[in-house]
Amino acid sequence: MSPPHRFFISAGAIEGDRAVLRDGQARQIAAVLRLAPGDHVILVEHGDDVRVRLDEVSSRAVRASVLCRRRNAAEPRVRLALGLPLLRGRRDEEVVEAVTQLGVSRIVPFTSERSVVRDLPPARRARWERIAREAAETARRGRVPEIGPLVPWDALFDALDHTLIVAWEGEGERPLTGAVRGTTSAISLVVGPEGGLTDGEVALAHQSGAVTVSLGPRNLRSETAAISAVAQIVGEIDAPQR
Amino acid sequence: MSPPHRFFISAGAIEGDRAVLRDGQARQIAAVLRLAPGDHVILVEHGDDVRVRLDEVSSRAVRASVLCRRRNAAEPRVRLALGLPLLRGRRDEEVVEAVTQLGVSRIVPFTSERSVVRDLPPARRARWERIAREAAETARRGRVPEIGPLVPWDALFDALDHTLIVAWEGEGERPLTGAVRGTTSAISLVVGPEGGLTDGEVALAHQSGAVTVSLGPRNLRSETAAISAVAQIVGEIDAPQR
Repeated sequence: MSPPHRFFISAGAIEGDRAVLRDGQARQIAAVLRLAPGDHVILVEHGDDVRVRLDEVSSRAVRASVLCRRRNAAEPRVRLALGLPLLRGRRDEEVVEAVTQLGVSRIVPFTSERSVVRDLPPARRARWERIAREAAETARRGRVPEIGPLVPWDALFDALDHTLIVAWEGEGERPLTGAVRGTTSAISLVVGPEGGLTDGEVALAHQSGAVTVSLGPRNLRSETAAISAVAQIVGEIDAPQR
Repeated sequence: MSPPHRFFISAGAIEGDRAVLRDGQARQIAAVLRLAPGDHVILVEHGDDVRVRLDEVSSRAVRASVLCRRRNAAEPRVRLALGLPLLRGRRDEEVVEAVTQLGVSRIVPFTSERSVVRDLPPARRARWERIAREAAETARRGRVPEIGPLVPWDALFDALDHTLIVAWEGEGERPLTGAVRGTTSAISLVVGPEGGLTDGEVALAHQSGAVTVSLGPRNLRSETAAISAVAQIVGEIDAPQR
């Protein structure tokens, strides 16, 4: 049996031991998934998984009873933010999908000197948000990553918590995993745009307290660098403490 | 100055201290990149980077002189093969591109019981090979990953060298990185198709000597699982020996 369908719900959808879903989620349950009274779904609220039994199902409203609530077990124990350059060909959307599955808590889009794509119009931001929500549901996470406002490089580091890590192709020595090992609260990772970072941008990162790290001797495209670095950090976070 | 353009060359293109490129590579150099006599390019042969100076440039033939040869420094020190299920929506091509940048030496496409896509027609195989070649050039690697023949699950493990690792969502405990740490010769990683592996398939993997590992508590799409697991393995391989 496949696991129950999961829905991130908005504030107020659960009151006491009763839940009500409307609009798109009601239509999804009634008309697309064709669930019926008696079926179970998981409503995800503030990092909790709330199992409910459907009582009434229609495309206008779905009413359900809470069966049990437990802390979602799929959230990483360290908050991980990603500073993600806007990329050509919607490659940034592939990154949003993958890193959301992998567990990032926030994605901060940015532009820098050599960025080719320089604008995130409302329709594209809405796509990012939809992709993040669906990927978080697929991954069975307890939270949807927040998509921050678009910032230029010189405002990026104010928008990110320490420990600050910048993957930089000019860094020959320091490997990523060593730089994050033992971090217990927050990590912010930044990868550069297609054209790379300028020396001035790297200097500003260092002044802001960032550590530059190498992702190894192979030249990675920005989207591969982002997914790969997030995967390695999450592997460290998930690992038993050494 | 950007690094010199790189070309994987076929056997016989270099003889002694002279090189000749023809056909597509000659056209690329003469008509697309518009390089001129005196420019340098890197010819990549059997894991060596051979720097040459162009002497004559035309779309029919490019003649060049060898300046120096050195071992390519971007190949991982452990051979890493990936058993990759055919995926819908050409998501498998995204994986071929990313894992080639990350350093895999071989990709073995497979189908299993729950595979939706079950055929790799010659035109799609040719696309995989082109994507792998271009990604290896971008990554400045010394070799292009080999794309193996399409095999069913019950022939997959004969096509892969030990240490055999299967990422399996039913494996609760064993993390990936511990399973590969210290491996010095070859690692083969297998990820399942969209629908997952059957119990019988997992049993066959265990009988074949494979270790099943967990990629963490979040449910990953196959393509994210493949890229993420390869990134973590390569991070271990590249790391200073502990």
